[in-house]
Amino acid sequence: MTPQREVICFVIVAEAILESRLLNGLVACGARGWTVTAARGEGPRNRRESEVEGGNVRIEALVSPVVTERIWSMLTDDYFPHYALAAWTVEVKVARHERYT
Amino acid sequence: MTPQREVICFVIVAEAILESRLLNGLVACGARGWTVTAARGEGPRNRRESEVEGGNVRIEALVSPVVTERIWSMLTDDYFPHYALAAWTVEVKVARHERYT
Amino acid sequence: MTPQREVICFVIVAEAILESRLLNGLVACGARGWTVTAARGEGPRNRRESEVEGGNVRIEALVSPVVTERIWSMLTDDYFPHYALAAWTVEVKVARHERYT
Repeated sequence: MTPQREVICFVIVAEAILESRLLNGLVACGARGWTVTAARGEGPRNRRESEVEGGNVRIEALVSPVVTERIWSMLTDDYFPHYALAAWTVEVKVARHERYT
Repeated sequence: MTPQREVICFVIVAEAILESRLLNGLVACGARGWTVTAARGEGPRNRRESEVEGGNVRIEALVSPVVTERIWSMLTDDYFPHYALAAWTVEVKVARHERYT
Repeated sequence: MTPQREVICFVIVAEAILESRLLNGLVACGARGWTVTAARGEGPRNRRESEVEGGNVRIEALVSPVVTERIWSMLTDDYFPHYALAAWTVEVKVARHERYT
């Protein structure tokens, strides 16, 4: 049986124009990898972000609890007051746990 | 530390032609935002949906337990009998919990 | 209330060139459906996979615990030693549980 351990999958959906700034921020917080998919969406503020800025990006990063807390702080300080951005975390299981901590 | 609370991430994968009907249904159930990504897939019925209808959409919405139950009812009544559609829920954590309830 | 049961959502992010081999492998392990989205990413090995091979794919499959273990074994034996690939599992809830087991 392949040994598995828990890590956290941090998901951020934001305007595409924020992508490189967010990815740099994730690295600064300690993330070591990510997946980006193109997306579009509508949020509680009822603005169609995709019609304003050429679409959204959905960013996923597998991170440790310590890095998770740093990302929440970054979003709270630098993004939530200014941008229509959705963010959530999920507990997931991985093999090769040492890659993510 | 950023306070976090649990909400439910409802994921629906369906033929692209159903997108606007599904999004209207999610709003009627009480969802206040969503993310849509283009997808393709194959389901247990062994039909390549993507070859029939120009691809699938993967819809995500962060919702409360009450809204979750309404969405399951809508899918059970109006979609599962008629369409090849995949749906699942995941427990996730968010900051700014009041945006989703 | 719609009855729901737990299954496992297995997520694999890999170079697009591996897609059909991975999907065949998932079927051989017992998966009965999947969703594929186009993605790009960077992993702990610090290689921009998307610049090498025309992008990544993000594959999701809802499977039973037994199938999950077979997929981990396949990845450990045939993929992890050779490819820059991310994989994780999430516990999710579905209706129509019999479709996934």
